[in-house]
Amino acid sequence: MMKLYSYFRSSAAFRVRIALNLKGVPHEIVPIHLLKGGGEQFGEAYVRTNPLSLIPALDDGGQVLTQSLAIIEYLEERFPEPALLPSDPLARAYVRAIALSIACDIHPLNNLRVLRYLVRELGVSDEKKDAWYRHWVELGLGQLDRVVVSSGRSGRYALGDQVTVADVTIVPQIFNARRFGCDPAKAPTLNAIADRCMQLDAFARAQPSAQADAE
Amino acid sequence: MMKLYSYFRSSAAFRVRIALNLKGVPHEIVPIHLLKGGGEQFGEAYVRTNPLSLIPALDDGGQVLTQSLAIIEYLEERFPEPALLPSDPLARAYVRAIALSIACDIHPLNNLRVLRYLVRELGVSDEKKDAWYRHWVELGLGQLDRVVVSSGRSGRYALGDQVTVADVTIVPQIFNARRFGCDPAKAPTLNAIADRCMQLDAFARAQPSAQADAE
Repeated sequence: MMKLYSYFRSSAAFRVRIALNLKGVPHEIVPIHLLKGGGEQFGEAYVRTNPLSLIPALDDGGQVLTQSLAIIEYLEERFPEPALLPSDPLARAYVRAIALSIACDIHPLNNLRVLRYLVRELGVSDEKKDAWYRHWVELGLGQLDRVVVSSGRSGRYALGDQVTVADVTIVPQIFNARRFGCDPAKAPTLNAIADRCMQLDAFARAQPSAQADAE
Repeated sequence: MMKLYSYFRSSAAFRVRIALNLKGVPHEIVPIHLLKGGGEQFGEAYVRTNPLSLIPALDDGGQVLTQSLAIIEYLEERFPEPALLPSDPLARAYVRAIALSIACDIHPLNNLRVLRYLVRELGVSDEKKDAWYRHWVELGLGQLDRVVVSSGRSGRYALGDQVTVADVTIVPQIFNARRFGCDPAKAPTLNAIADRCMQLDAFARAQPSAQADAE
C-alpha cells in the first residue's frame, strides 16, 4: 500500500491527501512532526527517504516521490479516473497555472522555514512577520481571484463544475489564509470555491483537523 | 505566431525560451522591463494580459498562458517532439519534482519583488539581503544535488542522456546562483549538468546575454 508522509497542518500534504481521497487510492499516512524535537523532517531516517527534508513524500512500493504537484500528476497518470485535469490543452494549462500560482508564488513565502529565518536570522518582529504572511497571501490570492474570474472558465469550482488540481491547491491555501486572519474579501471567488469543495467528503476527510496527528 | 512576454534576466522566462527553442516552435519575444518606470509588468496593458503581473506569459492566438511550468507542459502536449518529459510515470515524477523544487522552493524566495519587500518593508541591509539570497539557493541546490545523485537516474543530464524539463529549470537557476556568488561546490552535479546543457544551441540562444533586451 502507498505510504504518504504527512503533517496535519502542511498545506502541501493536504493537497496530496485530497487527491488520494478523490481518486480513492488506498494509502497509509505516516505522520512527520515538523516542530517536535527540532523537526522530524531533519531526522536521519526521513532525510534518507526525502533529502529535501520537506513534506509530503509518497512511497509507492519503495519508490519515493516528492513535491506535491509532481505526486498529483503521477497519481493522475496511474489512476486516470476521476480525472483531476481536463482533456483540452488550454484548459489544462489554466488549471495548472492556478495550482502553480499557489505552489510557487504564495505558499513558499510563508513556509515554516521561511518564517523562522525572518525571525531568527533577520530579527523581524512577530507583528512584521504576520504582516509579511498576510501581504503575500492577500496579494497572491487577490491576483488569482482576478485570473479565475476573468478567465470565464469558473463555475461551481475553478473550472466549471469539474473538481481539478486547481481546487486541490486552492482549498489548503484558503485554510492557511483563514488561520492567519487574511482578508477573505480580497479573494471572494476563491473563498466561495473552497467552501463548495469542503462539502465534498474527499476534501473534508483530508483537512488538518480530521488527521490522526492533529493537535 | 506565438508571443512570449519575457525579460532577459527573468529565470522563469529563460525556462520557457529554452523549451520553445528545444521544440523549434516559431515565436516572437515581447520584452517587458521589470524595473523601468516602476516595472512594465504593473502597467495597465500588461495587467490586462496577465493579472498576475509576472513574467513570463505566452500568447497563443489570443489565449494567454501563465506560469512557466504550466506553459512548458502545454508546449509538451501541443508539440510532443522532442519530448521534454520521459514516458515512464516514475521518471516523469522525478523530472517534475526537480523542476518544482526549483520553481517552488528556491526561485520564489529570491524573486525581485521579495528582495524588494525585504529592503523596503523590513529594512533589511543589502548584506543581509544577499545572505538571504545565497542561503536559499545554496540550501535548495545542495539538497537537490543529493536528490539527483541518490536517484541513480542522472547521466549527461538530470535524467540520463535525455534533455528534460529538469534541465530546463536547472540551467536558469544555476545562472542566478553564479550571478549572486553562490558557492558552486554546494551543488557540483547540477553545475556540471548546466555546463553540458549550455553546449546545446537551444540553451545558449535562450540565455540572458543573447536576448534583444539584454543590458
